[in-house]
Amino acid sequence: MQTVILNSPFDMHLHLRDDEMLKLVAPLSSKTFSGALIMPNLMPPVDAKEALLFYKQRIKKAIGDNDFAPMMTLFFKNYSKEFLEDIKDEIIAVKLYPAGITTNSDGGVEVFDTVELAPTLNAMSELNIPLSIHGESNGYVMDRETEFLPVYESLAIAFPKLKIIMEHITTKEAVDLVQKYDNLYATITAHHLTLTLDDVLGNMLKPHLFCKPIVKSYKDREALVKIATSGHPKIMFGSDSAPHLKENKEKDNAAAGIFTAPIALQILVQLFNDNNKLENLQKFVSDNACNIYGLKPNKKTITFKEKDFKIPDFYEKGTQKVVPMYAGEILKWSIEA
Amino acid sequence: MQTVILNSPFDMHLHLRDDEMLKLVAPLSSKTFSGALIMPNLMPPVDAKEALLFYKQRIKKAIGDNDFAPMMTLFFKNYSKEFLEDIKDEIIAVKLYPAGITTNSDGGVEVFDTVELAPTLNAMSELNIPLSIHGESNGYVMDRETEFLPVYESLAIAFPKLKIIMEHITTKEAVDLVQKYDNLYATITAHHLTLTLDDVLGNMLKPHLFCKPIVKSYKDREALVKIATSGHPKIMFGSDSAPHLKENKEKDNAAAGIFTAPIALQILVQLFNDNNKLENLQKFVSDNACNIYGLKPNKKTITFKEKDFKIPDFYEKGTQKVVPMYAGEILKWSIEA
Repeated sequence: MQTVILNSPFDMHLHLRDDEMLKLVAPLSSKTFSGALIMPNLMPPVDAKEALLFYKQRIKKAIGDNDFAPMMTLFFKNYSKEFLEDIKDEIIAVKLYPAGITTNSDGGVEVFDTVELAPTLNAMSELNIPLSIHGESNGYVMDRETEFLPVYESLAIAFPKLKIIMEHITTKEAVDLVQKYDNLYATITAHHLTLTLDDVLGNMLKPHLFCKPIVKSYKDREALVKIATSGHPKIMFGSDSAPHLKENKEKDNAAAGIFTAPIALQILVQLFNDNNKLENLQKFVSDNACNIYGLKPNKKTITFKEKDFKIPDFYEKGTQKVVPMYAGEILKWSIEA
Repeated sequence: MQTVILNSPFDMHLHLRDDEMLKLVAPLSSKTFSGALIMPNLMPPVDAKEALLFYKQRIKKAIGDNDFAPMMTLFFKNYSKEFLEDIKDEIIAVKLYPAGITTNSDGGVEVFDTVELAPTLNAMSELNIPLSIHGESNGYVMDRETEFLPVYESLAIAFPKLKIIMEHITTKEAVDLVQKYDNLYATITAHHLTLTLDDVLGNMLKPHLFCKPIVKSYKDREALVKIATSGHPKIMFGSDSAPHLKENKEKDNAAAGIFTAPIALQILVQLFNDNNKLENLQKFVSDNACNIYGLKPNKKTITFKEKDFKIPDFYEKGTQKVVPMYAGEILKWSIEA
């Protein structure tokens, strides 16, 4: 039986939510990951030191006994250099949302004016704080990422020393762009590597596969798989695992987000194996992130066996019930207990 | 207060379903329409004379007192000329589904081979029976209609005397094609004239706006609105109103179909008025269909007043509850009681 070992996997884009949901999902990430970059789009967003430290404390409490580093991010606003200097050691990045583009992003950036953004972004450059971006316009849903690419490009040019992370990229055009500027990097999710829009609405409608940015075409998925499985040094795994209550997905006006935290690594092992690229998986799930963000791997090793694994129909704790991607389906790889 | 009068509106593409659902939805169509072309995709599909006449009887029973003509269609298969001659006076068209493309279409056509289809289609040409087609490939969901256009084209060329109706067209490319061959015609729905994919999943996910073929881009909607509001003689209104139980829409694996029958005319009045094309609405909802299919209008007139109309949250009867498009929203036009 084939075995795969991953050392210190990191999830460089994770939504842990808060309160009861946090208690359900945090242990499901900390069980298999060594750490994760935690998204700040709570309600209200995490935009002050005290709130950030308190959120980190709640996460630590929810994790359990596992050796897991919650790497905190601030919700982007125009911050003073003094503020950023003071908070620098507590954060791994600042996350920028265009206003209204996804869950709890109403306080995001309305207009991308490099002059207006300069004081904050120059301070971040000097302090070596990466800028993480949800890159979508407010345009037609299938074109939003492509329409946003010129913003990435203008920021990359205007702030050449700023590390800019293109989060959860979904298109061939974004794959092309990330390779064009030295200071652009990207995360890719497990679901954008495995789904297309056909899975969401090509047959029946699947609310548990509905997310922002929406999954795209076969051409786009192919470009994502190609760069991720190549082990390209600018490309990191970020699950964008985004839990919502089952009842908030299976209804009219369903929420956007796919929950993958407990199954993403098994999916990635299967995908890289199917593409005969297992040798590059360690780079995608850990090494590249360590190099880009300067992370220290911990001693966690996760062992996978080529053995059927049935994805649970749901994960639950107390009042919280969340349905994962591929609920009830069989993966070919299991995590060794 | 502005008033609009429509004479004998016809819905040239309607799903009435069967049993309890039929009893709920049939009166909602017969109240405002003079007749409708009834789709045959029951389970099992309507593909024999006895089944067709019995279905027509059930529809007539469900209609109530209204003067309403259910115009029956057969589910396309290879039929003999004798069979078609015998059933000719009972049907208005034969409806062709590619296999597996929408609700109850599993027995549809697998391969579009003009030689194999020739005996049936030649017989239909000779007997002057129109061919109605759900034109989608099995490809990527956003490309399915465009990928099917060469099939329409090859059928139009191979059977020049066959009237071919491109049902519920959704793309600019289909709008272009229908004008290219004398024997091509098309229906357009109210929802493809008013929605884009942004409405379905650009913000929250809206299962009640999920249909096949899926609604497309702004460019596509613009082309549809332009040709429909022009009163183009080859373009007819067909609602494709496709009711599903509320509980089968607000769930995982939700069914495809938008329910518009009771509100489609009000939506169209508003749309044509907003485009300053009210003078062409009579053609779109009645005159063109009468010319293409040789229908006789009845004496029904429907009067609309420019007065707010709140769309019901749902329509129900017995165990059946169906949510219409735009549930709870306000339209600017009401039907005069």
